[in-house]
Amino acid sequence: MKLTVQEIGRMVNGKVIGDGSRQICGVAGLEEAGAQDLSFLKDVRQLDLLNHSQAGAILVPPPVAKASPSNGKVMIVVDHPFAALSVILKQIEKEKRSLPEGIHPTAIVHPTAVLGAGVSIGAYTIIEAEARIGAGSRLYAQCYVGKASQLGPECLLYPQVVIREDVSLGARCIVHSGTVLGADGYGYLPIEGRHQKIPQVGKVVIEDDVEIGANCTIDRATLGTTRIGSGTKIDNLVQVAHNVQIGPNCLIIAQAGIAGSSRLGKGVTLAGQVGVSDHIKIGDGAVVGPQGGVTSDVPAGQIYWGSPAQPHLQEKRQRVMLRKLPELLGKNTRKDKPS
Amino acid sequence: MKLTVQEIGRMVNGKVIGDGSRQICGVAGLEEAGAQDLSFLKDVRQLDLLNHSQAGAILVPPPVAKASPSNGKVMIVVDHPFAALSVILKQIEKEKRSLPEGIHPTAIVHPTAVLGAGVSIGAYTIIEAEARIGAGSRLYAQCYVGKASQLGPECLLYPQVVIREDVSLGARCIVHSGTVLGADGYGYLPIEGRHQKIPQVGKVVIEDDVEIGANCTIDRATLGTTRIGSGTKIDNLVQVAHNVQIGPNCLIIAQAGIAGSSRLGKGVTLAGQVGVSDHIKIGDGAVVGPQGGVTSDVPAGQIYWGSPAQPHLQEKRQRVMLRKLPELLGKNTRKDKPS
Amino acid sequence: MKLTVQEIGRMVNGKVIGDGSRQICGVAGLEEAGAQDLSFLKDVRQLDLLNHSQAGAILVPPPVAKASPSNGKVMIVVDHPFAALSVILKQIEKEKRSLPEGIHPTAIVHPTAVLGAGVSIGAYTIIEAEARIGAGSRLYAQCYVGKASQLGPECLLYPQVVIREDVSLGARCIVHSGTVLGADGYGYLPIEGRHQKIPQVGKVVIEDDVEIGANCTIDRATLGTTRIGSGTKIDNLVQVAHNVQIGPNCLIIAQAGIAGSSRLGKGVTLAGQVGVSDHIKIGDGAVVGPQGGVTSDVPAGQIYWGSPAQPHLQEKRQRVMLRKLPELLGKNTRKDKPS
Repeated sequence: MKLTVQEIGRMVNGKVIGDGSRQICGVAGLEEAGAQDLSFLKDVRQLDLLNHSQAGAILVPPPVAKASPSNGKVMIVVDHPFAALSVILKQIEKEKRSLPEGIHPTAIVHPTAVLGAGVSIGAYTIIEAEARIGAGSRLYAQCYVGKASQLGPECLLYPQVVIREDVSLGARCIVHSGTVLGADGYGYLPIEGRHQKIPQVGKVVIEDDVEIGANCTIDRATLGTTRIGSGTKIDNLVQVAHNVQIGPNCLIIAQAGIAGSSRLGKGVTLAGQVGVSDHIKIGDGAVVGPQGGVTSDVPAGQIYWGSPAQPHLQEKRQRVMLRKLPELLGKNTRKDKPS
Repeated sequence: MKLTVQEIGRMVNGKVIGDGSRQICGVAGLEEAGAQDLSFLKDVRQLDLLNHSQAGAILVPPPVAKASPSNGKVMIVVDHPFAALSVILKQIEKEKRSLPEGIHPTAIVHPTAVLGAGVSIGAYTIIEAEARIGAGSRLYAQCYVGKASQLGPECLLYPQVVIREDVSLGARCIVHSGTVLGADGYGYLPIEGRHQKIPQVGKVVIEDDVEIGANCTIDRATLGTTRIGSGTKIDNLVQVAHNVQIGPNCLIIAQAGIAGSSRLGKGVTLAGQVGVSDHIKIGDGAVVGPQGGVTSDVPAGQIYWGSPAQPHLQEKRQRVMLRKLPELLGKNTRKDKPS
Repeated sequence: MKLTVQEIGRMVNGKVIGDGSRQICGVAGLEEAGAQDLSFLKDVRQLDLLNHSQAGAILVPPPVAKASPSNGKVMIVVDHPFAALSVILKQIEKEKRSLPEGIHPTAIVHPTAVLGAGVSIGAYTIIEAEARIGAGSRLYAQCYVGKASQLGPECLLYPQVVIREDVSLGARCIVHSGTVLGADGYGYLPIEGRHQKIPQVGKVVIEDDVEIGANCTIDRATLGTTRIGSGTKIDNLVQVAHNVQIGPNCLIIAQAGIAGSSRLGKGVTLAGQVGVSDHIKIGDGAVVGPQGGVTSDVPAGQIYWGSPAQPHLQEKRQRVMLRKLPELLGKNTRKDKPS
């Protein structure tokens, strides 16, 4: 599954500048791209990034090719670079992916469920009473959609997604295999030395354009709503507890976990394996580094590292100090001895 | 899915004191409850907690209402507050949840399997040979129960639970979607530079009243038994390795993992993302804080923090020291210079 | 499910030396084995290990029994100890496990899919177009194999495994329940303040003799291939991101996660809950300790601990220092006062 620059050029009606025989096997942003990655550049203001990029080939608009004709980079000149990139990848995706078509005869759709126009439902998928599936949504095989749950238009569920009752997804949501939306939140009250279950009867609301990776768990609220804001993208094996509120356009990387009732603002990034304690607020645009453990509120725009997480410069300084300790304290000890 | 205090009062035949129009959308203990949470108070000895509670409304028994008639709190007076709370939540749950009823015609039940009275089995669920399902147990759609596995009475399996062969669950266990009970333990022997699989032929025993969240993995023992004690509650995405022994009434929070052959006593709490190494003993009532990494035994009743985990006061002191280091060692360095 | 030493002796035609009534309920290596474990010894060069072993019983070859006839250990003398061990465990496994036999009438196999000789496919399992299942492979119930995916000979899929399109497995691979192979990698480009999905159209290649635990997620590459090398063994709830390359004979313990495009050499061990950042290289034979966070390359043969991970002796020294800090800096402070 490799393409040459030449082949990519043909797919997007672009003009290749430089070595068209180069092998491309990935796609990345200009700054992260390596020698086998395709990247793209939006306009001339990014020219400096272009010059420093290691990308194997770069989709560029005509003004960039004019402004920097002989920079040694392999370029594919197209009118709209990102659109061209999407063309390439979607074309490949179309060839390779077999989407469910129509309602499979083994799908079990309750008579009170409502399916929009053009809905596809795969084999052995179950749609319970009063569920509503929006127009053009495609559910692969072996999924489960519980009572009164709703999917907006153009949603995509991969095989073996479980959506419990009273969960709603907006338009164009994608949910990957093995993910469970709307399992009971983890709530017990200590009664006479035993943990007495608090029934979890709230909802889950997933807004538009959310993508959720494989084997995630997003629990329903006790009462009220667990909410994932529009455009937020969740990686694999992520835990979102009951009553959590995640704002729009957040990035939640693999194996992160967010405990009950915590709130993330807009555009928050949680790196891999981050843990957020319960009832925490994380402000807009904040970033928590990998394996960070958030035990107190994070103000908007801040970068937090460490466990417990703290402002990253502070964490960095302490890490440096810690690394120097054997030397520093060794010296002190030697100094002490003569006295 | 919001209720007013007045509506709640009617549901439990309680007398409302204060503003009945308040919106309630959650349930919490007295100390954690916020302005939109319903809480409850057991008896007059908790009066002090009542006065400091931020709860939007509090279910109280008559003696409390008498002892503290005009405390400014919104109260709902009922004979048995926790019973009333359960009534409210179970009532809501009943309205919203669609339980499987009867044996669905697409369920595949092996002729040698034994189903107790009143068992319900959802669509596309499979019960293998010699399995036994206790009276009143309800299995949602698309579950798998392996050969010779047993469920006690009144168990509840949500969609897409996998129970492999030779796994036994006690009475009233609840298992959430995507959880796998009885996968092979992770065991290999290094033979001539390769990892040779040790067949895993032991069992899993889940005692009464255990609840296990979504997408957990509880492995079978190599030989012998992996055991989860009665009343223990396990959150989502938790890993329990082969031959682990968990005592009764433990709380294991999301994404925690317990390695092979470790033993937890009674009432142990592992917070989110805790890791426990293999062959560790954790004593009764011990608590390990979030992201803790337990690499040595934890005595009963102790609170451990950090990775590697240590007594929490010790960990706390070191964290404070570490935070002060830049200042402290900066000072030392300056002091050293003139000498 | 316990066996006495005597019973084990009979199963392998071995001669028991010592107390044959001892109960055995586990299997372990000589150094880790406890009083209820069976272990084994390859040849006389391991005699010293034998003497220090706590194992309840040890399978030994005749030369060992001759060289150390009266060492107080319970021994079972057999010609080939590891072969004997496997006989015992496989015998038990055979009795207990019910493998799928033949093609279940409810299995849905696309007419263009190709099944090798002796393939078994369980109830409600789905094989999509152009998929190929190698001779002798056994798929339990409720699995999904996507378009054009391939399984080599003698593979074993437990119930509810999801293999998406364009995934290939070599010979003798084992995949446990709930695992998802080939979900989309997590890739987005920031376009006008939104995260625009990069279609993920690469492959997953799993080489021969790989075993993957329950509820793991191994994502397909953006373009190119995510690869797991032959003989590598992956525990439960492990995340492998797009374009990751894992070498042969690695051990990846539960809840570890490897971010995009990182590369592990041969025989690498990642302990439980380890996180590896993206684009990292870990050399042959390197080991990362539990909860380690790898943010820079790890040279071959090194042992790394901590988060961020560093050479373990360095980490150890810093941990010791940190533990002594309250005392050391307390002393410094007292010393400072008089001056």
